[in-house]
Amino acid sequence: MKRIAILTSGGDSPGMNAAIRSVVRYGVSKGMEMYGIMRGYTGLLEDDMMQLNFSDVGGIMEKGGTILKTARCEEFKVDRGRIEAYEILKNRKIDGLVVIGGDGSLNGATLVANESNVKVVGIPASIDNDIYGTDMCIGVDTCLNTVVENIQKLKDTASSHERAFIVETMGRNCGYIALVAGLTTGSEAIVIPEVKVDYQALSDKLLSGKKRGKVNSIVVVAEGAASAYTVARHLENRTGYETRVTILGHVQRGGSPSVFDRLLASRLGANAVQSLIDGKSNIMVDLKGSKLSSLGLDEVLQTKKELDIGLYDLANTLS
Amino acid sequence: MKRIAILTSGGDSPGMNAAIRSVVRYGVSKGMEMYGIMRGYTGLLEDDMMQLNFSDVGGIMEKGGTILKTARCEEFKVDRGRIEAYEILKNRKIDGLVVIGGDGSLNGATLVANESNVKVVGIPASIDNDIYGTDMCIGVDTCLNTVVENIQKLKDTASSHERAFIVETMGRNCGYIALVAGLTTGSEAIVIPEVKVDYQALSDKLLSGKKRGKVNSIVVVAEGAASAYTVARHLENRTGYETRVTILGHVQRGGSPSVFDRLLASRLGANAVQSLIDGKSNIMVDLKGSKLSSLGLDEVLQTKKELDIGLYDLANTLS
Amino acid sequence: MKRIAILTSGGDSPGMNAAIRSVVRYGVSKGMEMYGIMRGYTGLLEDDMMQLNFSDVGGIMEKGGTILKTARCEEFKVDRGRIEAYEILKNRKIDGLVVIGGDGSLNGATLVANESNVKVVGIPASIDNDIYGTDMCIGVDTCLNTVVENIQKLKDTASSHERAFIVETMGRNCGYIALVAGLTTGSEAIVIPEVKVDYQALSDKLLSGKKRGKVNSIVVVAEGAASAYTVARHLENRTGYETRVTILGHVQRGGSPSVFDRLLASRLGANAVQSLIDGKSNIMVDLKGSKLSSLGLDEVLQTKKELDIGLYDLANTLS
Amino acid sequence: MKRIAILTSGGDSPGMNAAIRSVVRYGVSKGMEMYGIMRGYTGLLEDDMMQLNFSDVGGIMEKGGTILKTARCEEFKVDRGRIEAYEILKNRKIDGLVVIGGDGSLNGATLVANESNVKVVGIPASIDNDIYGTDMCIGVDTCLNTVVENIQKLKDTASSHERAFIVETMGRNCGYIALVAGLTTGSEAIVIPEVKVDYQALSDKLLSGKKRGKVNSIVVVAEGAASAYTVARHLENRTGYETRVTILGHVQRGGSPSVFDRLLASRLGANAVQSLIDGKSNIMVDLKGSKLSSLGLDEVLQTKKELDIGLYDLANTLS
Repeated sequence: MKRIAILTSGGDSPGMNAAIRSVVRYGVSKGMEMYGIMRGYTGLLEDDMMQLNFSDVGGIMEKGGTILKTARCEEFKVDRGRIEAYEILKNRKIDGLVVIGGDGSLNGATLVANESNVKVVGIPASIDNDIYGTDMCIGVDTCLNTVVENIQKLKDTASSHERAFIVETMGRNCGYIALVAGLTTGSEAIVIPEVKVDYQALSDKLLSGKKRGKVNSIVVVAEGAASAYTVARHLENRTGYETRVTILGHVQRGGSPSVFDRLLASRLGANAVQSLIDGKSNIMVDLKGSKLSSLGLDEVLQTKKELDIGLYDLANTLS
Repeated sequence: MKRIAILTSGGDSPGMNAAIRSVVRYGVSKGMEMYGIMRGYTGLLEDDMMQLNFSDVGGIMEKGGTILKTARCEEFKVDRGRIEAYEILKNRKIDGLVVIGGDGSLNGATLVANESNVKVVGIPASIDNDIYGTDMCIGVDTCLNTVVENIQKLKDTASSHERAFIVETMGRNCGYIALVAGLTTGSEAIVIPEVKVDYQALSDKLLSGKKRGKVNSIVVVAEGAASAYTVARHLENRTGYETRVTILGHVQRGGSPSVFDRLLASRLGANAVQSLIDGKSNIMVDLKGSKLSSLGLDEVLQTKKELDIGLYDLANTLS
Repeated sequence: MKRIAILTSGGDSPGMNAAIRSVVRYGVSKGMEMYGIMRGYTGLLEDDMMQLNFSDVGGIMEKGGTILKTARCEEFKVDRGRIEAYEILKNRKIDGLVVIGGDGSLNGATLVANESNVKVVGIPASIDNDIYGTDMCIGVDTCLNTVVENIQKLKDTASSHERAFIVETMGRNCGYIALVAGLTTGSEAIVIPEVKVDYQALSDKLLSGKKRGKVNSIVVVAEGAASAYTVARHLENRTGYETRVTILGHVQRGGSPSVFDRLLASRLGANAVQSLIDGKSNIMVDLKGSKLSSLGLDEVLQTKKELDIGLYDLANTLS
Repeated sequence: MKRIAILTSGGDSPGMNAAIRSVVRYGVSKGMEMYGIMRGYTGLLEDDMMQLNFSDVGGIMEKGGTILKTARCEEFKVDRGRIEAYEILKNRKIDGLVVIGGDGSLNGATLVANESNVKVVGIPASIDNDIYGTDMCIGVDTCLNTVVENIQKLKDTASSHERAFIVETMGRNCGYIALVAGLTTGSEAIVIPEVKVDYQALSDKLLSGKKRGKVNSIVVVAEGAASAYTVARHLENRTGYETRVTILGHVQRGGSPSVFDRLLASRLGANAVQSLIDGKSNIMVDLKGSKLSSLGLDEVLQTKKELDIGLYDLANTLS
């Protein structure tokens, strides 16, 4: 192992830069030549990469987004596209590749590992927290804090009117962000794709909260379950409440990463490079509790991460 | 002057609690008996008030919202409703009234001043910043920081795609929040009710930004000018960009007040009470620069606050 | 199990209120009568407790500190004091006790479990992160984010002078806070009790950073290793740098808890009560990765939590 | 006016970058050639400057510190040093100079205006808020919010012990930061250079607060009045309280600028350039209320800014 490239792909998440910094600096400290590929697999196909030295990644850990940019790449999904990519990696004498991203990105990673001579290690980064095999993906903790800080502000607004605030969160098909944000703000209700929504029960819950003296109600909705506007319409019809909608959107992808994400990214980045040096490939590095660990990308990609439904019950019990 | 009541009315804004604290404590320090009226004019009509002592308003300065709650009150707009209210104030032996809120609230305040024996002083509090005669209303500074912190996170998200983020802000018919938030985040474009929107020019601006190498564009839209979704559709049609919408909604009304709002509210609160003690009535207290000042509620309510269009030009020049 | 009491003890940490809320509400949902003991073991000895219902713990999750207050209690360390306490618990018909706190608090907990008929479960809460058997104590994540946000501001200040900023962090005999804060801010050096400080090597590192073009240097010092002023004096003498000291002090104990701490506290709180209902005692509940777990208080108290020295090496490699 | 240079000097403050961005972009929009001088007057003497175009100042508004760096410069205080500087400005064909900084920096500015052919406009930037003629200096608002956010965390920590927290703030000989931070956090006492400290009265105040049921006390101390450690020792001796000290230090200079500081800096930056184009010199631009204004540097430098002692009385009345 002599020359290692790194790319970020798919939706960006806070902490990607901390991972890039760690990959590059750890690699350099081990005598590797490190290369940064721009815009994920798109940049790989265009041979858009540059060498990165120790100081090139200074001052980036605290920044949201990714200095390498990301893109979705349709071309990489077809065989011909990838063959070109392998040619480019070969010409560049790249022996190892670190891929930082979510499911789609790791899918690309395993293709490279299986189809070329380049060894590949994946690092899970996605605000959706939908990747099997790791407790947490890079970016989830920061995203959650952004959502919760905003919901907390909602809880301040005073009203003697009957009113419900509907907050829509990201997460694609995974309800994790909505679930944990709802649980940790004591929100009245949580709508997630993993649990069939019952608008009548939801309305009854808000109305019973009103009887207990609550004047405001907050409902957190995962984008994968329903649109906030749909939920609002249902609740208005059944409760007679006024509703107000908050759509945070891509705000949830940004922000300076939390300490948790910086630490996770720093540890995984170094571990990914060390794994390559140790001759490993086609794996994803992850953190289990406080210990570094890894597992095969096949297993990662073929297993669905199950949401801990106990958290949903806990949220209902405590709110 | 012996007994002074205080109410908050209309849309709440961060800093109202700091004003309540200051009114109550300053009043108590001057030997007044202070009363808090719940839910604005609605609570007044229901005689829903209680005496507030020094310690009753401890620990509230840092909290968003208002401990006195607010409400809109249709009944107070008819003569018969108000006559009842004056009867209640008379029975309670209330000599002075401090009204904290926006245009509608101050309108109620001047009616009380003109129609009853109670002396009335208004304090401008509204995130819309649409009240004539004061540089800043209580709550605007906090609201702006909330909006800007969120837009700042949007600026982090990386993309190689052509993409525009549309952020809708509050402000009713006033573009101040959108204008200053756009200016202080270097957003590509600002859509406000005070300036007729030209979607073609807006689209051209985004496309020319792309030519200069920008990969993301942020457009801040005041709710009084257009819906973010409308702006998004126009831009998609004309630029071919993907768009993403952020609606902060009532998040903008919440949050722990900024130092500016705490200081403004603390100074205005004490000044309102002192003005009542000095025998003044039918005025609004305000801050001009760093000096306390006041002006008649008639003038406040009959004059439209003009947006400083120079700020709009400055935003365009600098972005 | 019918009646469960809860206390917080020792140094407070953010998230204690989230744990209290979860303990009380989960207990109530299981038909328990819940009691809150004020000021830790001190309040227990004074029979200073009250019943807590579902709504008594509303709106506290987001608050720093503990609504039950804490205190250190010398009297509880002597047999006679504790015998009185057991009498009080018996008179109150308390069957179970949840103790939230650090090492000292858990030590009290195991005494109660061994010496009385009351079943006891501990919940680890301490910003020092020095409790064996749990990945993280409640409060550590919030504390770390507070420290890192402040250090991040330090990194902004510009200078062409040679200058070093020394930041002293809490943690008693444990260097975890300083270590992770230093690692996740890319600080130039970290001084912790677990690694003997070599002022000459430290000075050389700063001087070599200067040669690489750095104009500012940040050194994070754990209070258990040295005073910031001592480190500053050593560095001034050896490097000729000006130094500036930051002592965050108890700021590190406060703040609204992070999502991580709220979630951890909510899960542990419910689990503690369920463990009591299941007849368990003399244990501490904890989270391993994303799974709830528990272990005996004897093991917790007799085993020293070792700092992961790999993190120290990683920090040195990456900075 | 064809070519304008800009420098930042003295202690940095948040918002300096927003001012630089505005100066450069406004200048470019008016057809000027804009130059950035590195490290204040030091860089000027070393002819260390570069042309700055529109895109060179992109993405800097939200950053603390100053991209141009700052330094103190002894050499500029002697005539010979300055004569060299004027030679350099002449060779560079610089017609106008914008100086961003505090008292010392503006002193340099007036010397250049009086002794050379270069026209000079100053912009007040200093967290100390000690410059005559402007309501607020750039950086004060951000600094205050940093201090207040930290004190707010202090207020969270629970205790049944008698304890006082002493917080030392910056501000050199000016008590403004301490005064406003103390007022807007409801701190028990404020120690500033403008009011002679009476430790006995201070101690009595804390003890009387204890009688009213307060368990924590916060004292804010301006560095220009006393060291926090001195105040702590006095209070310990007279009250028997434990004390805990917080020294924020240069943390107060950093952080992403608040909206207020970004807006102030953007407006002053553009106004400074326009003033130069209009042929003005030897003035400082400032904001009075919401209106742009200016005054002669002689008046600025010869007049002491008086602290509004009414704010001190208000703080005492309200806490």
